[in-house]
Amino acid sequence: MNTPPSDVSRVTCVGAGVIGGGWVAHFLARGYDVTAWDPAPDAPEKLRRLVDAAWPSLTRLGLAEGASPDRLRFAATLEEACAEAQFVQESAPEKLELKRGLLAELDAATPEGVVIASSTSGYPMTDMQTEAAHPERLLVGHPFNPPYLIPLVEVVGGERTDRSAVEWASRFYEAAGKSVITMERELPGFIANRLQEALWREALHMVANGEATVQEIDDSITEGPGLRWAFMGPCLTFALAGGEGGMGHMLDHFGPSLKSPWTRLEAPELDRALRDAMVAGCEEAAAGRSIADLVAERDRGVIDVLRATGRLPGEASA
Amino acid sequence: MNTPPSDVSRVTCVGAGVIGGGWVAHFLARGYDVTAWDPAPDAPEKLRRLVDAAWPSLTRLGLAEGASPDRLRFAATLEEACAEAQFVQESAPEKLELKRGLLAELDAATPEGVVIASSTSGYPMTDMQTEAAHPERLLVGHPFNPPYLIPLVEVVGGERTDRSAVEWASRFYEAAGKSVITMERELPGFIANRLQEALWREALHMVANGEATVQEIDDSITEGPGLRWAFMGPCLTFALAGGEGGMGHMLDHFGPSLKSPWTRLEAPELDRALRDAMVAGCEEAAAGRSIADLVAERDRGVIDVLRATGRLPGEASA
Repeated sequence: MNTPPSDVSRVTCVGAGVIGGGWVAHFLARGYDVTAWDPAPDAPEKLRRLVDAAWPSLTRLGLAEGASPDRLRFAATLEEACAEAQFVQESAPEKLELKRGLLAELDAATPEGVVIASSTSGYPMTDMQTEAAHPERLLVGHPFNPPYLIPLVEVVGGERTDRSAVEWASRFYEAAGKSVITMERELPGFIANRLQEALWREALHMVANGEATVQEIDDSITEGPGLRWAFMGPCLTFALAGGEGGMGHMLDHFGPSLKSPWTRLEAPELDRALRDAMVAGCEEAAAGRSIADLVAERDRGVIDVLRATGRLPGEASA
Repeated sequence: MNTPPSDVSRVTCVGAGVIGGGWVAHFLARGYDVTAWDPAPDAPEKLRRLVDAAWPSLTRLGLAEGASPDRLRFAATLEEACAEAQFVQESAPEKLELKRGLLAELDAATPEGVVIASSTSGYPMTDMQTEAAHPERLLVGHPFNPPYLIPLVEVVGGERTDRSAVEWASRFYEAAGKSVITMERELPGFIANRLQEALWREALHMVANGEATVQEIDDSITEGPGLRWAFMGPCLTFALAGGEGGMGHMLDHFGPSLKSPWTRLEAPELDRALRDAMVAGCEEAAAGRSIADLVAERDRGVIDVLRATGRLPGEASA
């Protein structure tokens, strides 16, 4: 790895659609020189529109020193785009064959040792790095839409990826202002996408069967569990449904519901090992906070989110 | 129905655990006289503790005129609790046989025509109203934890429930400051719980298989999709992943992912009818807002939520 993660100043974004363009906006706002490339004829114009539309939000969010939308350059060719890159983010369409070939081309055009990350929504890098000459520097850096606002990046390598490249990428993304989960092993869909994909598939089943409308599905989340999930994850919020007994009591009480047809997804067997793993995991996540502390935190958070989104009763809506 | 929904002043809460106690706190804060009953010996003390712990939050949220924690009375018997009720909310433990018997008892003790709602997390009322003499006034009013902060209530009757009782309950909950989804048909788990249960089961599978830790699961939501779901539902946010093409483009692009093993839940067939239903549903939910409007709204919302929860880069954390 030529450049230490926090010394990187030039990044290349290949693919300038919604995700690739969002990465461009993010890196510009964090003060990088960004080179973009996308073979679509209207790509430069669309990218400029996306960056211009995002810039007021990025300004509200707080720009890094020296950040400017003028530090974006659109390259004429893939080779030109990669020639001086210190980091490459690939965000091409979600097609395995295309990703395989493109990653091999990027690998051939990018200076030795420079890390190349794919924004793929769920393909394992092991399946994508098959054609590249230097697979050891290819890894997944999976963002959420829009990458310039949602902090999460899931970082995971493939079977032929060097551990040092994964560590470099995690540190680089953190330096670039992202919130990183570094996964120890490949899992199709990674973590967050598996969770939201389960929810999404259930939603599609409901619409397909006429059980709920799109509006009801969206309202059921924004007026319900979505308010908690903005700041406290599903495990810790469910622990609070167990009252003073926490996750242990919650699982003992609601465990039988796992046999109920409350979703089309079959639940795992709630054996002692899983119960104890959930309880221990929640205790670890609570990091010393008592149930009462967490309840107070959740309540404060929900009120703050309701206020921030203009939904406090009696206050004018935003 | 004796009392018009917005004239109700006395409500009875049966079951004073986390959910029942949360309902008590909500109704007190909205200015009702609340009578509670729970057979557990330590219930009065636990309930008082819960209300006291919630009251500062409820005060921040804004109390209704005349609201006071002193307007709570703990009844000695179920019969006494229900004798003068204008509305009854049942929040007993999630056991079908127990709910069946309890609802029959509540029905016998409550004045004629007064609506009795169950907080059940997912049992259909058809299965719970079997033993009651007046099943026509029994329905589900399913809240989210904590009921005093999360607006959503899902209202749905059983086969033997009167349509007028369902309508009365929906109007009553709205008058009591809740956000109501009135379901046309019974569905195990209702809507929001089916969605969060799918996500939850996938999370349990991941922990059971050592694929992710509790902390990673929680972080993947709070740093990722959870930030959007606090104010924009999964359908509309996914529509924005389609860029200027919206939900149609998103489904055409990511549709093949539905065949990928990105969750253990099998997806429905994405045929023309489902595709068109999703596109039409999103257009309806957008209610005239363009994709650019929605992107601006999402961006503003995410920034507001990040700021409200102390996570704007460069700002001190809350």
